[in-house]
Amino acid sequence: MASVQVSVIGSGVENEERAEEVGRLLGERGVTVVTGGRCEVMAAAARGAKSAGGTTIGILPGETREGANAWNDHVVVTGIGHARNLAVVASGDAVIVVGGRYGTLAEIGLALTLRRPVVVLEPGWEVEGTIRAETPEQAVELALGAVAA
Amino acid sequence: MASVQVSVIGSGVENEERAEEVGRLLGERGVTVVTGGRCEVMAAAARGAKSAGGTTIGILPGETREGANAWNDHVVVTGIGHARNLAVVASGDAVIVVGGRYGTLAEIGLALTLRRPVVVLEPGWEVEGTIRAETPEQAVELALGAVAA
Amino acid sequence: MASVQVSVIGSGVENEERAEEVGRLLGERGVTVVTGGRCEVMAAAARGAKSAGGTTIGILPGETREGANAWNDHVVVTGIGHARNLAVVASGDAVIVVGGRYGTLAEIGLALTLRRPVVVLEPGWEVEGTIRAETPEQAVELALGAVAA
Amino acid sequence: MASVQVSVIGSGVENEERAEEVGRLLGERGVTVVTGGRCEVMAAAARGAKSAGGTTIGILPGETREGANAWNDHVVVTGIGHARNLAVVASGDAVIVVGGRYGTLAEIGLALTLRRPVVVLEPGWEVEGTIRAETPEQAVELALGAVAA
Repeated sequence: MASVQVSVIGSGVENEERAEEVGRLLGERGVTVVTGGRCEVMAAAARGAKSAGGTTIGILPGETREGANAWNDHVVVTGIGHARNLAVVASGDAVIVVGGRYGTLAEIGLALTLRRPVVVLEPGWEVEGTIRAETPEQAVELALGAVAA
Repeated sequence: MASVQVSVIGSGVENEERAEEVGRLLGERGVTVVTGGRCEVMAAAARGAKSAGGTTIGILPGETREGANAWNDHVVVTGIGHARNLAVVASGDAVIVVGGRYGTLAEIGLALTLRRPVVVLEPGWEVEGTIRAETPEQAVELALGAVAA
Repeated sequence: MASVQVSVIGSGVENEERAEEVGRLLGERGVTVVTGGRCEVMAAAARGAKSAGGTTIGILPGETREGANAWNDHVVVTGIGHARNLAVVASGDAVIVVGGRYGTLAEIGLALTLRRPVVVLEPGWEVEGTIRAETPEQAVELALGAVAA
Repeated sequence: MASVQVSVIGSGVENEERAEEVGRLLGERGVTVVTGGRCEVMAAAARGAKSAGGTTIGILPGETREGANAWNDHVVVTGIGHARNLAVVASGDAVIVVGGRYGTLAEIGLALTLRRPVVVLEPGWEVEGTIRAETPEQAVELALGAVAA
């Protein structure tokens, strides 16, 4: 049986440090980290998870592994472009948001549509129905608490 | 060559009247109205377009025409569930938002990712980068102005 | 209510003439022709439909109208690459195949999975469960007969 | 970096034994086994891989883990129905086919479109461009040989 999976979404170089810490904390807890498989927040979260001995899955938009970061243990090559955002959030038992622009907003909307718990690490997109966290530790605790609930 | 297409997105019974007016105004101008093909705002926008002799396309999430409203001239049966939201907004040269919940938020995020002009009829989701309109007339004018630009 | 829609799929310059005839016959009967919206068989089928005053829809793989042929009355921009093949066949009440390579084979498989009647204009992919036609006239008759059944 | 991944596709209770052997041989070689995540051939291939200490990924069609078999180490919840077939084959560096009906035929077509090597374990769908294997051992050897090439 597949273990608990948490999707980490977002973007922005300025958010990499916090995303790496989120990934590390998830990896320490034995939670598989799911991302969009590419750069910035996605790469940082996966790197953090690997630094803690965790497992990572990258769900890519293209038809090949092109653009995949080096910290994906497994890659899913979807070939469906931005529609892969749906798979990224649907594959998480919960979703943690670290920064991000419009693609991330779309993912938040899709995640809430599918009734996934969505934890936003402040500062971030303000959307009714999301859970707010002040620190990476709190984001991971709130996400895992929501999964257990 | 395909003519100008504007996608009308949103939901909520309370928004049907305004959506119908948006559809009517688009239909009058010879603009094809694209929607998600189902109920509430989608049906109202299509009904409005038909009342003005316009053309409508409904892009459905399921594998059959089930759930399609009666005002779709043409239906696209995608079979890809919520991922069809990408096709709904990508198929519009501009997007007009009338109410809506999380699915609509996802569509706004996807539309902005693809650099489609997004006009939100107030009151509605507040997202940086969207164009705000006070009335259906203004929404249609702003959307068509953005297409022409 | 959307009228009858038939999807015409395939590829190959050598098949354009027959595809155009299929499109023309469908257009004459008031059937909306759905294609993948691009070149060769897709363009020819749409051109044939337009020559008979019919209506055409092109379901495109990319995120813009790029690559669309000139005979699409309406375009659906899916942004999902080859996964748009599912939408192309699902949107037809029946599917007519004119030539084609691997993408067409995938579409035949998807169409049969969704229980759409699939008429192959000989010579073409030989797949159990498809209906075989010798001429464009026969292909259109068999397809429309299968829809009515 | 993600290791070599091979997708095993097909269906049919009568093919489970051979699919399990294919999975076992892939798992022994440290190759990650990708499947559609559900029953019959998909479950058997994953079960075989797990019996050899391998790693498995199941790419599911629905919006939840519903229908997932017990041998998926990781699940990807795509929410895109049959369009997930594209992700299943695209995620394999090579594809091995064990039995199967129309969904499998669609996957073969998609895999060949994306230029993935496709090995069909006899007896199976006869499609030009596929590599034919007589035994599970041969199928795995041919698939891995094609990846290395």
